[in-house]
Amino acid sequence: MRRLREKKKELAAVGYNCWLEYQKQENNMLIHEYAELCRNIVICEDSDIIKNALDELRKGIRMLLNIKPLVSAEPKIKSYLLIGTFAENNRVGSFLEADEKEKIGDEGFIIKLINTNEDRILVIAGKSPKGVLYGVFDFIRAIQTQREQSSILRIENPVNQLRILNHWDNIDGSIERGYAGESIFFKNNKIIKRLDRIRDYARILASIGINGVVINNVNVHKYETNLITSTYLPDVSRLADLFREYGIKLYLSINYASPMQIGKLTTADPLDDNVREWWDKKIEEIYKYIPDFGGFLVKADSEHRPGPFTYGRNHADGANMLARPLNKHGGIVIWRCFVYNCMQDWRDYSIDRAKAAYDNFMPLDGDFDSNVLLQIKNGPMDFQVREPVSPLFGGLQKTNQAMEFQITQEYTGQQKHLCYLVPMWKEILEFDTYAKGKNTLVKNIISGSAFNNKYGGIAGVANIGDNPNWTGLQLAQSNLYGFGRLAWNPDLTVEQITDEWIRMTYSNNEIVVDVISEMLLSSWRIYENYTSPLGIGWMVNPNHHYGPNVDGYEYDKWGTYHRADLKGIGVDRTVKTGTGYIGQYHKEVAEMYEKVETCPEELLLFFHHIPYTYRLQSGETLIQYIYNTHFKGVEQVIELKNKWLGLKGMIGEELFKHVSERLDGQIEHSKEWRDVINTYFFRKTGIKDQLGRTIY
Amino acid sequence: MRRLREKKKELAAVGYNCWLEYQKQENNMLIHEYAELCRNIVICEDSDIIKNALDELRKGIRMLLNIKPLVSAEPKIKSYLLIGTFAENNRVGSFLEADEKEKIGDEGFIIKLINTNEDRILVIAGKSPKGVLYGVFDFIRAIQTQREQSSILRIENPVNQLRILNHWDNIDGSIERGYAGESIFFKNNKIIKRLDRIRDYARILASIGINGVVINNVNVHKYETNLITSTYLPDVSRLADLFREYGIKLYLSINYASPMQIGKLTTADPLDDNVREWWDKKIEEIYKYIPDFGGFLVKADSEHRPGPFTYGRNHADGANMLARPLNKHGGIVIWRCFVYNCMQDWRDYSIDRAKAAYDNFMPLDGDFDSNVLLQIKNGPMDFQVREPVSPLFGGLQKTNQAMEFQITQEYTGQQKHLCYLVPMWKEILEFDTYAKGKNTLVKNIISGSAFNNKYGGIAGVANIGDNPNWTGLQLAQSNLYGFGRLAWNPDLTVEQITDEWIRMTYSNNEIVVDVISEMLLSSWRIYENYTSPLGIGWMVNPNHHYGPNVDGYEYDKWGTYHRADLKGIGVDRTVKTGTGYIGQYHKEVAEMYEKVETCPEELLLFFHHIPYTYRLQSGETLIQYIYNTHFKGVEQVIELKNKWLGLKGMIGEELFKHVSERLDGQIEHSKEWRDVINTYFFRKTGIKDQLGRTIY
Repeated sequence: MRRLREKKKELAAVGYNCWLEYQKQENNMLIHEYAELCRNIVICEDSDIIKNALDELRKGIRMLLNIKPLVSAEPKIKSYLLIGTFAENNRVGSFLEADEKEKIGDEGFIIKLINTNEDRILVIAGKSPKGVLYGVFDFIRAIQTQREQSSILRIENPVNQLRILNHWDNIDGSIERGYAGESIFFKNNKIIKRLDRIRDYARILASIGINGVVINNVNVHKYETNLITSTYLPDVSRLADLFREYGIKLYLSINYASPMQIGKLTTADPLDDNVREWWDKKIEEIYKYIPDFGGFLVKADSEHRPGPFTYGRNHADGANMLARPLNKHGGIVIWRCFVYNCMQDWRDYSIDRAKAAYDNFMPLDGDFDSNVLLQIKNGPMDFQVREPVSPLFGGLQKTNQAMEFQITQEYTGQQKHLCYLVPMWKEILEFDTYAKGKNTLVKNIISGSAFNNKYGGIAGVANIGDNPNWTGLQLAQSNLYGFGRLAWNPDLTVEQITDEWIRMTYSNNEIVVDVISEMLLSSWRIYENYTSPLGIGWMVNPNHHYGPNVDGYEYDKWGTYHRADLKGIGVDRTVKTGTGYIGQYHKEVAEMYEKVETCPEELLLFFHHIPYTYRLQSGETLIQYIYNTHFKGVEQVIELKNKWLGLKGMIGEELFKHVSERLDGQIEHSKEWRDVINTYFFRKTGIKDQLGRTIY
Repeated sequence: MRRLREKKKELAAVGYNCWLEYQKQENNMLIHEYAELCRNIVICEDSDIIKNALDELRKGIRMLLNIKPLVSAEPKIKSYLLIGTFAENNRVGSFLEADEKEKIGDEGFIIKLINTNEDRILVIAGKSPKGVLYGVFDFIRAIQTQREQSSILRIENPVNQLRILNHWDNIDGSIERGYAGESIFFKNNKIIKRLDRIRDYARILASIGINGVVINNVNVHKYETNLITSTYLPDVSRLADLFREYGIKLYLSINYASPMQIGKLTTADPLDDNVREWWDKKIEEIYKYIPDFGGFLVKADSEHRPGPFTYGRNHADGANMLARPLNKHGGIVIWRCFVYNCMQDWRDYSIDRAKAAYDNFMPLDGDFDSNVLLQIKNGPMDFQVREPVSPLFGGLQKTNQAMEFQITQEYTGQQKHLCYLVPMWKEILEFDTYAKGKNTLVKNIISGSAFNNKYGGIAGVANIGDNPNWTGLQLAQSNLYGFGRLAWNPDLTVEQITDEWIRMTYSNNEIVVDVISEMLLSSWRIYENYTSPLGIGWMVNPNHHYGPNVDGYEYDKWGTYHRADLKGIGVDRTVKTGTGYIGQYHKEVAEMYEKVETCPEELLLFFHHIPYTYRLQSGETLIQYIYNTHFKGVEQVIELKNKWLGLKGMIGEELFKHVSERLDGQIEHSKEWRDVINTYFFRKTGIKDQLGRTIY
């Protein structure tokens, strides 16, 4: 017992509890008031989820307020917390108005304070147990962040139906693009038996409203293909059971060629009767193990994965074949749009990978079944530090859509560099597509509201592994937190999310909040400053994607080029003289991108080939801008480090040291970026830095 | 039995027998004369090596001449072959003159035709059984290549004592820089049990006079470290037994840190008494298993391998510690000079990797024990398609030296491209170092004759694996053959070696000989044409080193840069303005390299940074030369293919197809080289091709 407590303390010190580190709050008036409400928890129902909600609430109250609350079916004192689902005739229901109940959706909750003559009651209620769980986590967050009591009162429903994490975990325990250790689900081609850590993970996800997990990599290799067979399904169902207790549905990535690889069929043609029958039976079998199975995530005809193209069928044929049998059970198909020619000839300037997803999927708008979602990466390329929004958002109208963000920092420093992505995601969600005229924002399209789609949502590629702090760089937990919060409510401001995370994770000390907030909010731009400029992307080492290599992908087959010569750089994607990619946007957006003068400068090189002597709005030439931002970026990282050092004593020692060390590494590596990029362009242009700084 | 014969036929068809494919010779007068001599083999002695020599002779005669020779201790007919070692009082000795015997060294042989009144005797004799074996192979070669009988008569001694192959085989079966399958020695961390293939290999090596093999990689990893322990020594000794029967000694690469990794010592300091004692005992142990063990090959303090530097000792300390106990048993230490800083900062123009070997080893000249050889790569960098000769040759005078050539085509097309390296090696061997004034050729230094060194020789990094044709590209067998022949006698002309190989491998058809000879002799220059120009090297993809990537190593830590900017390219290694590398050569050579005007043009960019507009002797500008050679290179590969196609019907069908396919691949890949390099330099310089050919 003592060993367990020691172990827990050790883990807490490195950040294992993330933002659920319930530190005892200082005893101010607000905390005193919370305490008064929390001495008695009244609860009259019992279910796995409600049990977890109650446990969480007790734990939160005990640790945050230093109170051991009395739990009872009837109120024991006049001031109490009442939690549970509401119904016509139950106690919880009797405290809510009819219009309140109406406003609460399947996953929503209400937190309501009732003062009667005699009693003071705080109701945390949901239509479903899941709603109650979310309400409890929100209430705890209110205490953690010392929200005024009046402002904790609310009705909340998640804006997006699907709030899902994609884990690129392989069954051998490795994680594709994982930077925080090995998988917490798999090891040695088996599902991990000890569920403690996975349970802790489910709890963390529930606290930010995640309601779905795909546990295996979208690249489904040999062994993973068998996850949908009786070899693995008993163990998969144990995971599903566990996640269910936290309101999270389990999904699987499947191999499109399963009928051939698992079944003994000679084809995986989606219009072949035997294939359809095979999938019908397979799906029946899965639901016997997991009655609320979420559905399939499918990467087909992409980067050498099999798909319907093999049989001359289109992606609607492929997706609908799976969707129909899944629909009987309430399951869905999430179909990825990351389809492009990955064997491109770099010599051919007419092909443009950016156009591929739109070209492949727009003609199919309206052809997908109602339980199919297309999962679309935020940009047309692949999670670069800066990309325009994919034109499929606003293009597709009769198709359910989900946004795919990459929480794991593949191209943004691999959790060795600090790069807080929430500001980027927020910018993307607020982007105006003009699909139905002004104000057709991406966030309204993916929520389903803009075009009345049945399903919608956000998927994030997880950034966690079995590192004791989950994310490698502990600060990278903020990306997971922010992802969940934005998925729940994209209207939240970046500042609010950031503020919450810091207060919950570290403390309410205003210096800590201010300093870390500054660090996080500036970090994306800093990373951009010392890496690839103005939206061009891809100046990385091939394969592992870490570190600078300007020509790394320039003469390769992946469709990712900068086309730099001695005079200029950038890809002409205009309609008039370029690849025509810009024509995939709606008129207002297309016009803005088409002209160099109106194109947002941060995307200038994505859309245009620009001479180095071109003057930006700042008055700098393009080449001088490259030099300036790269010198500045390194200085900014040094500043980040100095800011962090100022927090000594205000952050736990281990965490303090850990982040300091990572920032040291970032300083060194940002210098490498600066020097390689500056030297590359100096050698190419012969133009000197106006300020005479060292370029090698 | 029939299955075995079928199998042998199949293997023969793909080239398994290499140049020992004894095809029946056409029945001309010469062959008739040979036949007359070969009906009776007289032999009076018995040993493993002699037995193998006899077997080979019988096989060769049977297959080449279609005769089943009678073997007897006494002549049975008047015309016969007499083979064996000569001694004062034996039959063989009685046919040799005293001065002949004197001229024959330990490994040498004599072939002598004696016509008496009654008898016609061809004597093939050696001082040792090994000499007899070499004589037999030479005699067979004479028949295969239809050498006139008069010109087969000779006394031959190998010029180099050490004619050794380095196998970069790992014990898991992989081969570092292997392009012909897996190891024939190792599999799954064990030594392979079935020795058939290894025996065939030993025979092939003996036929070209190889007398040593290092069976494991110079990078000695975890398991390989244990090759010198009782875990592996019994199996190693079985290999040694096998090789011994073909006159080949077995050597092992060792891990310098063995006393720590195998023994339980806390240091590997060469001056530590415990360490010395540990090695003494270890070496005793090895010789118990292998009484004629060759010795150790050591890569120390190189590319992260451990070495004496760790303990503040120098390489003489390290090598001599091993040499002393080995010396008791006649063993030697082969110490590699491939020592440089592989963590260089590309920004630092003052460091020059080319200087490293000389800087590290010259100060130690004379400090090494007499049974230590320094093994020096031919050039100062690492087996690029064109490099100057290492200045250690001619620098070192009081130290035994061995040349290290790379037969495996790491940087020269990886046995997917045809690149016949014998002309390159010959050029290097004939290079005049001026160490003792004019005519101090490299070949005379490494043979030991120039400075009267006790040991000398040539090592080659093997290009073979378990591919049925041994070398991946069957034509690459020519490199192994040529290596062995040059190691035996560096005075042989390239043309003679090439001619021999073709005749032995394919046929004496003059068209075949002419065409393949042209192909081989032009292939090195062709490969150079479409890859990196004028000695600059390194324009390859990092790690695997296949395919073009001009900046692949430009911003890396390996010390391998081209320093190209918009105005010029090349590394200034002059004494006057550059890194000073040229100063490592003797005066006459240094003066030649120092001046742009006298520097051989094929090495221009290795030694100088040159503007693209510089005019070469041909009148072309440097940039136009780059374009011209790259366009030409591709055309030349197409020509290679056409030449080969002209041999249809004259080459076995399978081989013909195999080579055709490889040449197709080479055409495609040479285009990739051409286009990447041309585009890179066009983008960098903005200078157009004068002939207006397509640059992308």
